[in-house]
Amino acid sequence: LRRAAAAVRAAGWELWTFSRKDPRKPVYAAKVATALALITLLVFLREPSDIVSHSVWAILTVVVVFEFSIGATLSKGLNRGLGTLTAGGLALAVAESARHMGDLDIVFLIIITFAVGFGTTLIKVHPKMKPYEYGLRVFLLTFCYVTVAGYNTGEFVGGTAVSRFLLIVIGAAVSLAVNIGIYPIWAGEDLHHLVAKNFGGVAKSLEGCVNGYLTCMEYERIPSKILTYQASDDPVYSGYRAVVEAQTQEETLLGFAIWEPPHGPYKMMKYPWESYTKVGGALRHCSFAVMALHGCILSEIQSTPENRKVFSAELHRVGEEAAKVLRELGHRVKTMTRLSSPNILAEVLHAAEELQTKIDQRSYLLVNTERWGEDTAASTTTPAGAGASSENEAPEHAVVINVPTLHKLESNATPARAAGVGLPPLHKSESNTTLARAASVIIPPLHKSESSTALARAAGVSIPPVHKSDSNTTLARFDSVPMSLADGLALKSQGSWHHRMPLFEAAEARAYESASALSLGTFASLLIEFVARLGNLVNAVEELSDKAGFKDPVEEPSAA
Amino acid sequence: LRRAAAAVRAAGWELWTFSRKDPRKPVYAAKVATALALITLLVFLREPSDIVSHSVWAILTVVVVFEFSIGATLSKGLNRGLGTLTAGGLALAVAESARHMGDLDIVFLIIITFAVGFGTTLIKVHPKMKPYEYGLRVFLLTFCYVTVAGYNTGEFVGGTAVSRFLLIVIGAAVSLAVNIGIYPIWAGEDLHHLVAKNFGGVAKSLEGCVNGYLTCMEYERIPSKILTYQASDDPVYSGYRAVVEAQTQEETLLGFAIWEPPHGPYKMMKYPWESYTKVGGALRHCSFAVMALHGCILSEIQSTPENRKVFSAELHRVGEEAAKVLRELGHRVKTMTRLSSPNILAEVLHAAEELQTKIDQRSYLLVNTERWGEDTAASTTTPAGAGASSENEAPEHAVVINVPTLHKLESNATPARAAGVGLPPLHKSESNTTLARAASVIIPPLHKSESSTALARAAGVSIPPVHKSDSNTTLARFDSVPMSLADGLALKSQGSWHHRMPLFEAAEARAYESASALSLGTFASLLIEFVARLGNLVNAVEELSDKAGFKDPVEEPSAA
Repeated sequence: LRRAAAAVRAAGWELWTFSRKDPRKPVYAAKVATALALITLLVFLREPSDIVSHSVWAILTVVVVFEFSIGATLSKGLNRGLGTLTAGGLALAVAESARHMGDLDIVFLIIITFAVGFGTTLIKVHPKMKPYEYGLRVFLLTFCYVTVAGYNTGEFVGGTAVSRFLLIVIGAAVSLAVNIGIYPIWAGEDLHHLVAKNFGGVAKSLEGCVNGYLTCMEYERIPSKILTYQASDDPVYSGYRAVVEAQTQEETLLGFAIWEPPHGPYKMMKYPWESYTKVGGALRHCSFAVMALHGCILSEIQSTPENRKVFSAELHRVGEEAAKVLRELGHRVKTMTRLSSPNILAEVLHAAEELQTKIDQRSYLLVNTERWGEDTAASTTTPAGAGASSENEAPEHAVVINVPTLHKLESNATPARAAGVGLPPLHKSESNTTLARAASVIIPPLHKSESSTALARAAGVSIPPVHKSDSNTTLARFDSVPMSLADGLALKSQGSWHHRMPLFEAAEARAYESASALSLGTFASLLIEFVARLGNLVNAVEELSDKAGFKDPVEEPSAA
Repeated sequence: LRRAAAAVRAAGWELWTFSRKDPRKPVYAAKVATALALITLLVFLREPSDIVSHSVWAILTVVVVFEFSIGATLSKGLNRGLGTLTAGGLALAVAESARHMGDLDIVFLIIITFAVGFGTTLIKVHPKMKPYEYGLRVFLLTFCYVTVAGYNTGEFVGGTAVSRFLLIVIGAAVSLAVNIGIYPIWAGEDLHHLVAKNFGGVAKSLEGCVNGYLTCMEYERIPSKILTYQASDDPVYSGYRAVVEAQTQEETLLGFAIWEPPHGPYKMMKYPWESYTKVGGALRHCSFAVMALHGCILSEIQSTPENRKVFSAELHRVGEEAAKVLRELGHRVKTMTRLSSPNILAEVLHAAEELQTKIDQRSYLLVNTERWGEDTAASTTTPAGAGASSENEAPEHAVVINVPTLHKLESNATPARAAGVGLPPLHKSESNTTLARAASVIIPPLHKSESSTALARAAGVSIPPVHKSDSNTTLARFDSVPMSLADGLALKSQGSWHHRMPLFEAAEARAYESASALSLGTFASLLIEFVARLGNLVNAVEELSDKAGFKDPVEEPSAA
C-alpha cells in the first residue's frame, strides 16, 4: 500500500513538473474540463426527456473533437459534421427503401452495409485520404447506426434525429467557443515557433561539432543509441536529431494550421504555412550536413590533433559565422522581420573562403606524402605512370620509405570499438618499438598518437615532397627535416623502426595514415558544403518573408 | 455532370490500381465490411427490444476498434475495454453518491466532471501516455456519459449497463474473430518485412550514388524538393529517404507488434521486436552516410572526371561489395537465417583497403599541388614554414605558378544554381582565353571542364611534385609533362593564360581548384565511413539473430 502511495506521489510529481515545463498542457486540460462541465450543466438544465437519452452525442462530440490546437479542433469538427450529415442522409434513404422491400429487406440492408463498409474503409486507407480519415470513420459509424436503428424504429425522420444532430452541434459549438475563447492555442503559431526554434538547435549542434572536432573530442565508446539512431542525451546529437524528427510534427501542424482562420500576426487569407515547412525542410537539409560533420567525430579514422590545430582558426571561424547566420535567420523567422540586407552570408562566405585558401596552402597536411617518392621513381621509368589515364600500378620496388605511422593505441577505448565492429581486438603496442599488430586488423584507429610519435609524424609530413628522391633510401628524405620540429628521440626511434617493419604492415599502416590525414580534409569540405547549403536556407527564408509579408526591420534602416 | 462522371471514374481507377499494388488493403476493407454485416445481422436476429437501442455500442466498437493489423486491434480493444470498465465503475459510484446529496448534487457532479476531465486530459497529453491515449479518451467519454445518464435515470446498475457492456464485448469479439480468422495481417510481420525491405533501398541508393559519382552524374538544377527534404522521384534520393522516413512507421508497428501473440515464424514468448527496430536504426545510421555521399553529388564543388576515373575501379568495387553485403544482410533478415560466417565483411573491407591504398598512392590527385612550390621556396628560407606548429603564412612571393583552373562554365545549369544561392550569376566564359569572371563570384562551380581544358588540367596535375622547383616559373614545371596526355592546344592556351591572369583571381581560383580536388577525397572517405558503419549494422543483425533465434543456414554448411 505504501508503495502504491509512493508511486502515485511520483506520478503526481511527474505531472507537476511536466505541467510546469509547458503550461499550455494544463491550460488545455482545464479547457476540456470546462467544456465537459458546461455540457453536463446544459444537460441538467433542460428537461430530462429527450436530451438525456441522447446526451451521449454531445459528450462524445466534446471528448472526440476537442483537440489541443484550434486547427485540429476545427478540422475534426468539420470532418465529424460532414460525415454525420452525409451518412445520415444516405442511411435514411436506404432505410426507407428497405422498408418497402418486403421479405428481402434484411438481405438488402446487409448487402448495402457490406458495400458501404468496404468502400469507405478502402478509401480510408488510401494515403491521400489521411486528413479525412476521421470523417470517413464517422461516416461509416453513423451510416450503420442510422440504417439499423432507422429501419427498426422507423421514427428517425422525426424529432430524434433532429435533437441528436442538435446535440452534436451544441457539443461542437461549446468545444469551439471554449477552445477559441479561452487562451487559444493555434497550430500555426506552434508551427512558426517550432521552425524558428530549430534554427537554434542546428546552430548549437554545429558549434558543438566544430568545437568538439577542434578539441579532439572523442567518444570513449560511441553510445549504441547513436549508432541505431535512437534518442540520446548527447547535446550535439540531440540538436540535429530534434530537427530531423521535427518533420512529422511540422507536417501534422501544417495539416491543422491550414484550417485555422487568420489570427494574431498571421492576418492574411491563405497564409503561406507551406513556406514554413519549406524553411523547415531546408533547415533539415542543412542539419544533414551537420550530421555528416558529427560522423567525422564518430569515425574511427581521425586526423592528428596537430593537423587540426593548423586549421583551427579557420574552421572555428566558419563554424562560428555559420552558427551566427543560423541564429540570425532563426531570430528573423521568429520575429517575422525581413532580412535587413542580402549580405547576411557575406561573413560566413568570407570565412569559408579563408578556409579554402588555407586548405590550398596547407594541402600537404591533408594527404600522406610519404608514398609519393615511389611513384616518382615509377613515373620516371614509366612516363605516364602517375597520369590520370594510366591504369598500371606503380611497381613496389621502393618499399620502406618512412614508417612513423604506428601510434600507441589506447587499450580501453579503441579495442572496444574495434571489437564492436566484429574485428579482432588490437594488441596494445606497449612501446613504440613493439610492432605486435595482428596482420588481420582491418581498420585500426590511427589517432591517439602520443606526443613523441606525433612530433615524429609532424616531422615526417612536413617534408614538402620536392626533393629529388632518385635514391629510394629513407634517410635521403630525412636530410631536410627541419630539426627544430623533430626531436631527436622521434627521429631515432624512426631510424630503428624501419629496419624491423614487415613490408606488408608498413604498406597497410601507411594507407591508414593517408586516410587519417585525409579525414581532416573531409571535415573541412563538409563544413564548406554546410555553408553552401546555408545559401539555400537563406533563399527559403526570403521566400517565406515575401509570401508571408514579413515586416521590414525597424532597428536597422537598410541603406536602400 | 460529365466532368463529375470522369472524376468518379478517375477516383475508381485510382482505388483499383491502389488495391492491385497492395492487395492487403482491399482484404482489410472486406474484413471490416464483413464484421459490420455480421453485427447488423446479429442486431436483426435478436428481439429488437433492448438490443436495438444500444446497438450503437456494438457498431461503434467495430468501427473504432477494427484496425489494419491485429496488434493495433488488440491494443485498441484492450484500451477500450479497460477504459469502459474503470470509468463505468467510477461513474456509478459517483452517481450513486450524488443521489444522496440533496440540493448540492448537480454542483457536486459538475465539479467531479471538471476534476476528472482535467486529470484525464492532462495525463493524456503526457508523451509517455501516447499508447494509452485512446483508452483515456474512452475513459473520459464513458465516465461523463454514465455519470449524467446514471444520475438522471437511476437505472444504470440494472440491465441496461449489462446489455450495453455485452454489446461492446460482442462487437470486440466479432472484430477480433474476423480480424484473426480471415487472412490475418500481423504488425510484427509488417515490421519484419519493412526492416528487411529497407536494406534493398539503401543498397540501391548506395549503388546509385557511387555509379552516379563515377559517371559524373549531375543535376541540371537540383530539385528544390531535395533541398527542402521533401518526397521526390529521384531514385537515389528516394531510396535513402524512405529508410529515414520509415522510422515513424517502425515505431508505430513496434507499438502494435508487442501486443500480438506468438504466431507464424515468430513462435516465442516476448519476441524481440525491439531488435528489429534496432536493426532499422543501424540501417538508418548507414543511410545517413549514403546521404552524405549523395551530398557530394549535389555539391557545387566537384572534382574532375579524370581524377574520378583514376579511383573508378576501387570506388566502384567498394560500392558494389557494400551493396552486396547490404543485400545479403537484408536477405538474411528476411528469411530469418543466421549469417553463415562472421566474414561477411571480408570482401568489402578488402575493397575498402584497396581504396585506401590507392588513395595513399595517388593522394597528390586529392590536393592541388600547384601551391606547394611556393611553400617549398618559403620553407627553404624559413625552415619551419611548412611545419605543423608554425603559424606564419608562407609569403606570397611566388604568385602565378600555374593556372589551368578556369573551365568553361555551362551557361544554363550553373548560373541558375549560383543564383539560387543568392550569388551574382557567373559570366559564361565563351572561350578558354576569356577571363571575364566577376571578382565577386564566391563559390564558382569548377567542374564541367570541357575536354581540352580537362586534358590540360590532367597534365598539370599528373606531374608528380618531385621536381626540384627551385625556379618558380611555370614552364619549368611543364618540362616533364607527359606529352602523350596533354594535347598541344591545351598547353598553348595555358601558356597564353598565365600572362593575363590577375593575381587575385588566380589565388581564388586556385583555392577552389584545391577544393575541387579534395572533394574526391571526401567522397572516398565518406564511402570508407559507410563501410565502417556496415560493421555496426552487421552487429545489430547478429544481435537480432541471436535474440530471435534465427535458424542456421542450411544450404551452406559452415565448416565449424
